[in-house]
Amino acid sequence: MKSIVIFGAGNVAIHLFLALSKAQNFTVVQVYNHTSKSLKFFRNRVSTTTNLKEVKAADIFLLALKDEAIPAIAERILQRDALVLHTSGATPMGVLNNFTNYGVFYPLQTFSKEKPVEYKDVPVCIEANSRAALELTEELAAEFSEKTYRISSEQRKSLHVAAVFVSNFVNHLYAEGEELCHENNIPFEILHPLIFETATKIKALDPKDAQTGPAKRRDDKVIDAHLELLQGNRKKIYELLSSSIQQLHGKKL
Amino acid sequence: MKSIVIFGAGNVAIHLFLALSKAQNFTVVQVYNHTSKSLKFFRNRVSTTTNLKEVKAADIFLLALKDEAIPAIAERILQRDALVLHTSGATPMGVLNNFTNYGVFYPLQTFSKEKPVEYKDVPVCIEANSRAALELTEELAAEFSEKTYRISSEQRKSLHVAAVFVSNFVNHLYAEGEELCHENNIPFEILHPLIFETATKIKALDPKDAQTGPAKRRDDKVIDAHLELLQGNRKKIYELLSSSIQQLHGKKL
Repeated sequence: MKSIVIFGAGNVAIHLFLALSKAQNFTVVQVYNHTSKSLKFFRNRVSTTTNLKEVKAADIFLLALKDEAIPAIAERILQRDALVLHTSGATPMGVLNNFTNYGVFYPLQTFSKEKPVEYKDVPVCIEANSRAALELTEELAAEFSEKTYRISSEQRKSLHVAAVFVSNFVNHLYAEGEELCHENNIPFEILHPLIFETATKIKALDPKDAQTGPAKRRDDKVIDAHLELLQGNRKKIYELLSSSIQQLHGKKL
Repeated sequence: MKSIVIFGAGNVAIHLFLALSKAQNFTVVQVYNHTSKSLKFFRNRVSTTTNLKEVKAADIFLLALKDEAIPAIAERILQRDALVLHTSGATPMGVLNNFTNYGVFYPLQTFSKEKPVEYKDVPVCIEANSRAALELTEELAAEFSEKTYRISSEQRKSLHVAAVFVSNFVNHLYAEGEELCHENNIPFEILHPLIFETATKIKALDPKDAQTGPAKRRDDKVIDAHLELLQGNRKKIYELLSSSIQQLHGKKL
């Protein structure tokens, strides 16, 4: 049984903890966080600490921290022979190069405290500095998920941007759609099947081939009528995304 | 058994035809389109015509046409006592007011020729000018789907804009994400679970509460690193959507 200390107490830390509490060969022995308040979720489940000097010895230190906290915390970890992994999409592996064995364990999913996740379907992007580090990281990833990908720091930077586009920005468009419904006394649930189908469709079709709508078919009359209804950021988003769709599809002609 | 003539031969016409071919109380007796080529799909399945003078008598004329074609075709339909419905999100019901009974049958879904759809889950937005028209439109909608909503022309305008945001624009963000993966030799499938989870999450959480990512948490370092990787429309989209997320969430503070 290999031991793990999780650093951090946010959404990612919580979901890693929950997933790893079912693992066969790994056990979370402690959760560290710099403030006590955020440790509430963990307190009755596992040993916790806010003091870096009290961090237990472990086989793996899993840094589920904000990007800016990763180098600062890594510097202050005393045990240097553990495998140290961070979970960030945006931070290069090299910030951990004070350790002998280090790497990245980046679960590519959107985690909210309130929403359970089927961990076995969450792709884990891994990277490691040595064969030993890679083997242990792979073993950990295999306990977490059925889908593991070797992704370099360079690739991960772009992948993280792509994830922002297809998840964070997409969710914001859902939020704009919901406000539009709300303002017009339309139940937002009416859009759920469309949202779901749009997301499912790209398993069968390339997103470029799946594109539909007034911008794609260059229906200026509809576009103008829509723009008349909009203002502020919503209008700017409509204009920019319509023009971007037309440029992407214009290139093909 | 009530008879239907479908006008139009695009994605919506094809899917309406497929759905109604299983209906108990309705039968499609003919499909009209102004060009012969687009009628290929229908030719061995039902009577077709490119000549408005040869359109059969029917109980319902279903205009699954481009917005600009709706008034022009409606004007040239000779039989005035059928129920005439259009399927557009963007056209007011009133363009059909030359008829005695008319209305709107707007299925709120993204239809591609290549992708089957579970019709019973597709919300149908209906509107009609008279009690008789409404009853027949409701009966038709009930054959097509389990979800029928009464939506006025005024509401439908905004709903159509909302649909563009949560479907057409969302799909374009998927396309940008795919290109980013492609340019960096990352398999796009790695993003499928994230896309799917982002779409599913809003059934459990309000999209505003589900928002995550660097813009939401005002992580300027990550935002700046992302912007450095981007250019052109992609950079503009990143800037505008990040700033829109921050405005939406700033208001709450």
